[in-house]
Amino acid sequence: MEAIKSSFPVYFNYQVQFTHGLFDKKNPLFVEIVQQASKQPSKLLWVIEQEVANSQPELTAAMDAYCQHHQLQQCGKPLVIGGGEAIKNDSSLLKSIYQAINEHGICRHSYIVAVGGGALLDMVGFAAATAHRGIRLIRVPTTVLAQADSGVGVKNAINYFDKKNFLGCFAPPYAVLNDFNFLISLPQRDWRAGMAEAVKVALIKDAEFFYYIQQQAQALTQRSMPAMQHLVRRCAALHAAHISGSGDPFEFGSSRPLDFGHWAAHKLEHLTAHRLRHGEAVAIGLALDSTYSYLAGYLAQNDWQQILATLQDLGFTLYVPELSQQLDKLEHPLNIFRGLREFQEHLGGELTIMLLEKIGQGKEVHTVDIALFQQAILLLKELR
Amino acid sequence: MEAIKSSFPVYFNYQVQFTHGLFDKKNPLFVEIVQQASKQPSKLLWVIEQEVANSQPELTAAMDAYCQHHQLQQCGKPLVIGGGEAIKNDSSLLKSIYQAINEHGICRHSYIVAVGGGALLDMVGFAAATAHRGIRLIRVPTTVLAQADSGVGVKNAINYFDKKNFLGCFAPPYAVLNDFNFLISLPQRDWRAGMAEAVKVALIKDAEFFYYIQQQAQALTQRSMPAMQHLVRRCAALHAAHISGSGDPFEFGSSRPLDFGHWAAHKLEHLTAHRLRHGEAVAIGLALDSTYSYLAGYLAQNDWQQILATLQDLGFTLYVPELSQQLDKLEHPLNIFRGLREFQEHLGGELTIMLLEKIGQGKEVHTVDIALFQQAILLLKELR
Repeated sequence: MEAIKSSFPVYFNYQVQFTHGLFDKKNPLFVEIVQQASKQPSKLLWVIEQEVANSQPELTAAMDAYCQHHQLQQCGKPLVIGGGEAIKNDSSLLKSIYQAINEHGICRHSYIVAVGGGALLDMVGFAAATAHRGIRLIRVPTTVLAQADSGVGVKNAINYFDKKNFLGCFAPPYAVLNDFNFLISLPQRDWRAGMAEAVKVALIKDAEFFYYIQQQAQALTQRSMPAMQHLVRRCAALHAAHISGSGDPFEFGSSRPLDFGHWAAHKLEHLTAHRLRHGEAVAIGLALDSTYSYLAGYLAQNDWQQILATLQDLGFTLYVPELSQQLDKLEHPLNIFRGLREFQEHLGGELTIMLLEKIGQGKEVHTVDIALFQQAILLLKELR
Repeated sequence: MEAIKSSFPVYFNYQVQFTHGLFDKKNPLFVEIVQQASKQPSKLLWVIEQEVANSQPELTAAMDAYCQHHQLQQCGKPLVIGGGEAIKNDSSLLKSIYQAINEHGICRHSYIVAVGGGALLDMVGFAAATAHRGIRLIRVPTTVLAQADSGVGVKNAINYFDKKNFLGCFAPPYAVLNDFNFLISLPQRDWRAGMAEAVKVALIKDAEFFYYIQQQAQALTQRSMPAMQHLVRRCAALHAAHISGSGDPFEFGSSRPLDFGHWAAHKLEHLTAHRLRHGEAVAIGLALDSTYSYLAGYLAQNDWQQILATLQDLGFTLYVPELSQQLDKLEHPLNIFRGLREFQEHLGGELTIMLLEKIGQGKEVHTVDIALFQQAILLLKELR
């Protein structure tokens, strides 16, 4: 009997908008976004990160006033929840979001508006993507990292079995609204950490952008807003262009160029029990994989040195003791190279690691030389 | 600052294959499917419905022999779990699948092979779609309903907060392998129940197919395999064609033609605490919405009578007391019309209900006359 062949595209599209003062009554952006699909008032469910609400006590009042002014239909008070990677381990938080969706009768044409850093967006995004098979998610990222990188993408996740992003799905947001004002009150550590992903995407895709960061390193660490706005916009644009232009936005294949430096970063976050922020771990991962690229003969010495110097100029630490603990015991749970296997297991298929050929150009490899990687770690340790 | 517009298609494709004896060593279908992406041996995790394993005690041995013969890499023994809608309420079963995925290092390029009825495929599908953001799922549906309808589609789900399919996502399978031999040992009740979805899709899309079912009603109830094979193949083809041809496979809009008869069916399953099988509830839903279509003047009397007679010829009951309990108390939790609101809440947007204009042609409406629906229920009660 003849087979049935089912073959179809699904079209996704969303905007990443940049603004100042998203909830100023006079700012039309938010109301335009929630009314673009329908003039009928749709329900809004707010989820806000505790730290954001604390550091901006006027925020929830401003949101409320904005909704009143524009006659938007809020569902109850905003859910205020914690932030940071730890919340992705706590399934009761996920359940509290499902509960609010159920209580307020939030449907697929309603909006969940998530205001916070990358971890909160990941977790709320997973709830939104799976309740009723997908509720519209508006991301309002409040950190450099989330505005420039994770908040722009098509993924969400929670942790499970102590494994980062073990559960999640691909679900493009309805819109991403980047309000630069959130960055003003950001702690210095988060301000810095977010820049690691910008260095990453510059290194694999855009040499000019790397040299911009190199040149502006001092201004960036001294919190120049114009420099940071450029960094966020450019990083977000490169990230979005990769997703829509790669031909594999939902990662059916094995290639994952945007994960340059990430196999070690994910493992380091775990090994340090999240003492390291994601961006801080990524900076170390970039340093490690760049050093390996140099030792393996792919990357010129001068490029390698510029990369390390720029990361240091931005204030990143490029070595932590967890990199070299149990270094020779490849099967030891605390050995960094277990991260390679977990990375492959998560992505599936052939091991595919992005390395560097030169600044602005990546190079994929499918095998690595562990002894050379061990050398790279020891070199980073010496360079401290 | 200029917005970034992210816009891209994601291409999905999968095959629905028909066969006899999927796990006969000489049948090349299964091995071809799991080797089409890569000649490298990929891991297989089996999940099998308890009742299927019980009724075919030789099945797991045959699968094992098939894998040995074709050198396929099985991960542990098959997980054998219950079936039926109740399993979708049990989150510990979902967790047991996640656990197996974790233990065996199942990755995105591995295969989860789910062998069972629609509820099992729904639940295993949700696990597969969310672990590592999506593992390849091969569906081996074992009931008429799953082979002809649910197993062919792009959805998965579990129940939550006592609501059907509250959690789920859109995730096309890797392949659907329909082995007609599974239907031979199917209990009569499941054999019959599965035909309701075929009547449904015929009524809204294909008059010729409806008249085929009408003509073959006796042969079908007397378990003619050729008649059933035609019914399964045609129903699956219409279902798949709708998904790929509708322009909205992931249901971003409000229109849901394939849900003809389903608002009442979902509610009845719940109100009867699953005493009714899904297909049995759908048959009642079809009778109800056809009767309403007739009373509202959309559908000719003769068409209406043929529909009811055909459903009865297939052996379906067209009325249960739960239809009319608390009939005038629209806010009572046991009132059937609460199902309309829940249907809208799940789908979101405007209320959109599919009715019938004539056999083979649906008609969408956005408002309904509850008094007329109450009349339709009383009419079905009388016709008993």
